[in-house]
This record gives sequence, structure tokens and C-alpha cells, in this order.
Amino acid sequence: MKLSKIQKKLADFAKKRNWDQFHSPKNLSMALAAEAAELLEIFQWLTDDQSKEIINNEKEMVLIKQEIADVFIYLTRLADKLGIDIEKAVLEKIALNEKKYPVKLAKDNATKYNKR
Amino acid sequence: MKLSKIQKKLADFAKKRNWDQFHSPKNLSMALAAEAAELLEIFQWLTDDQSKEIINNEKEMVLIKQEIADVFIYLTRLADKLGIDIEKAVLEKIALNEKKYPVKLAKDNATKYNKR
Amino acid sequence: MKLSKIQKKLADFAKKRNWDQFHSPKNLSMALAAEAAELLEIFQWLTDDQSKEIINNEKEMVLIKQEIADVFIYLTRLADKLGIDIEKAVLEKIALNEKKYPVKLAKDNATKYNKR
Amino acid sequence: MKLSKIQKKLADFAKKRNWDQFHSPKNLSMALAAEAAELLEIFQWLTDDQSKEIINNEKEMVLIKQEIADVFIYLTRLADKLGIDIEKAVLEKIALNEKKYPVKLAKDNATKYNKR
Repeated sequence: MKLSKIQKKLADFAKKRNWDQFHSPKNLSMALAAEAAELLEIFQWLTDDQSKEIINNEKEMVLIKQEIADVFIYLTRLADKLGIDIEKAVLEKIALNEKKYPVKLAKDNATKYNKR
Repeated sequence: MKLSKIQKKLADFAKKRNWDQFHSPKNLSMALAAEAAELLEIFQWLTDDQSKEIINNEKEMVLIKQEIADVFIYLTRLADKLGIDIEKAVLEKIALNEKKYPVKLAKDNATKYNKR
Repeated sequence: MKLSKIQKKLADFAKKRNWDQFHSPKNLSMALAAEAAELLEIFQWLTDDQSKEIINNEKEMVLIKQEIADVFIYLTRLADKLGIDIEKAVLEKIALNEKKYPVKLAKDNATKYNKR
Repeated sequence: MKLSKIQKKLADFAKKRNWDQFHSPKNLSMALAAEAAELLEIFQWLTDDQSKEIINNEKEMVLIKQEIADVFIYLTRLADKLGIDIEKAVLEKIALNEKKYPVKLAKDNATKYNKR
């Protein structure tokens, strides 16, 4: 399914419930951050290795899938409301990151480009 | 472009830089939340209406596109690392939301289902 | 009660439960952000005015007090673990803000100093 | 210095700049979460051990102190606006946590009480 189709599905969902009144970019940015933080909460006390092994915990994985979906939903909703083509934005950002993080400088080094 | 293709592009990007050592689910959940918060910061002092009108501010829109892309990038990266099919997860969540928020109860009402 | 006394109380709480193993600065920064986001969630669909009137909603206020306490608890815990004197840090930051946001430039204007 | 004195200092700071118009509980919850996320960003790619050793990195510590102060500032501002006595809220929450996390059950175990 294409991103635009999911966006349309979400727009219909909101329209039927008359939720556009709540979906200002400001409010959507809050919902997005709140959902992202629910993922954070899942991982906060886990070691790095435990966070990788969570893949074997069926119950937690159900929850994680839902939270990832929620972040995706609010993100595409926000992009839709602002008339942003996510796919285009992502490809442009990857191209920008190629410049900011050339392999030579960024190999084995996650330091932010402006702190390097 | 399909989601899986973007995921592949991002995986290659990380591999070339030997960044998989940093991309544990735990760390990716942190990066995701940090990027989501940068969107938050853009809107924090704006009124609801100002947040809608930002669409006319070219300079801010460049920034917003980049932040939306960053959230998308870390989200797809996280899903990839956990073997989650985002598209499937999103469609399942939308179906679940249809049940949690039936039009009758949710019309004009953004209250969370478990607080209604 | 002084801040240092609360910090001591929290350190004792963690020690009794052998929780220092979990309380790395990294993990505490995650817990802090996750708790801050729970406040966000409470306000996400409210208008500005509704967010002010919440003071009259006893049930919500109980929740807000708990979330504010949680943020405070993880913040003082993090400061403690890093040997940071919060009070001193806050007074220094206020002094810095006085310079970054002189009344003349900042009156009626919440724009971040580096965007002005 | 007492918390109430810092709160007064911050209220004066806002008043002089006519910033109360921006400081609704909703907006303050956003600013708080955005600042908390800046701490997150500092730690996101560090290992647990590296996050502890950051204490020896003078430059990073300057930044961390400022971010911790920022979180504290918005938190006390939010509490002030909602008429919440932070100290009282914190002591009540610690008492509640004593019940939710009895030493017997919580020893060496950071699992959230409702997941145990």
C-alpha cells in the first residue's frame, strides 16, 4: 500500500469523527511526541542487549507494534495537515545526511556532525 | 517508492558507516523521541492558528520537513531492527482504533477510550 | 524541606531496592523524558484555555501532581548521579537567560534567542 | 534557597517580559518535554558506562547542567501556574511509590508495578 493511501485512510477516520478540530499541527506534534515516549518507556530500564532480545517477547512485541503504528499515524497525519510529501522529505534528508556524515568521517562514529 | 525500499536505503547507510553498533532498539527509541521533540519545540509557543499558518513560512517549513523526515527515518530503522512490518502494523492499529473509537462515541470527542 | 534532603530520600529509596544498577544517567534521561511526555499527553487535545481550566478538575489534578512529581524525582535523581547541584545550576541558568532574553528584545516575544 | 523563592524569581522573569501570555499549562508541558528530550539527545548513542563517565567531560557537563536547569525551570513554572506545591507533591509520590514498590517485590527489579 502506498503512503498516500494510508494518509487518505487516516484523513477519512478523522473526518468521520469530526476530529479535524483537534488535529492542528501543534496538537499533532504533541500526540506524536507522547507516542514516541511510550516506546521510550518500554526500553528505559533494559540493557542494550535486552532491548535486542525483546524481539522474542511476544507480549511486548504486540505493544511495540502498536506504539510504532501510533507514531507513524500521527506523523503521517501531521505531514498531511502541512501538505508535506513524506517520501520526498525522507529522500531529501537521506541525501543531506550523506553530505553531513561522509563515510570517512562517520565510520564507527555517531557524533553529531556539528560536534565533530 | 515502497517503504521496504526506504528501509533498505537506511540499512545500507548505517552499514557503510558501521553504525549498527549504535542502532540498538533502545538507542533508536531515544533518537526517535529526541527528533519528535524537535517538532514539539517548533510549535511550543504558537497558538493553534499560528501552527496552521506555519505552512506559509518557507523557512520554518524547510526545518519541519527535515524533522518529519528524521522521525520517519528512526521509526523505520527501529521497525527494521525489530523485524516489524510497519505497513501491516499501521493497518492493524487503524482497525483497532475503529473499535476503540466508534463514530457514535468519538464524534467531536478526543477523549482517550479508557477515560471516556 | 531542602532539595538535598529530597535527593537523599530518593537515593535511599533506590538503594533499598538495589536500583542503582538501573539508574545510569542514560536510563534516567529516558525515564525523565517518558514522564514529561505523560504530562504532554494530558494536555494534547485541550485548547489553551481548557489547559488553564484544568485546575478545577480535581481528578485530572491528582494525576498532574503525580506526573509533576515523577519528573521532579527523575530530574533530581539524574542530577544526584552526575554530582550536579540543581539549585546552583538553576540560578546560573536564570542569570544566563537574563542575558539571552533582555526585556527590551524579549517583551511579548517568545522567539528563541538564536532565531531572533 | 527555597523552591518557592525560585518560583517567584521565574514568575518575575516572565512578568517583566510579558510572557504569561505564552505560559499556559499546555505550552509549558511542551517546553518541558522538549527540554527533557535535549538531555535524551546527549545520551542517545552512549553506552551505559559512557553515560556515567560523562561526568569527566567538562564541556558536556556544562551543557547537561543547563538542560537540567531548563527542565527544572519549566517544571516549577508549570507547577506554579497550576497552583501545585511541588515539594508536597513529591513527598506524596514518594510515599505512594513505597507502596507500589515494596522492597520485597521491587528488589533488583525495575518492572513497572502494573506489569509485575
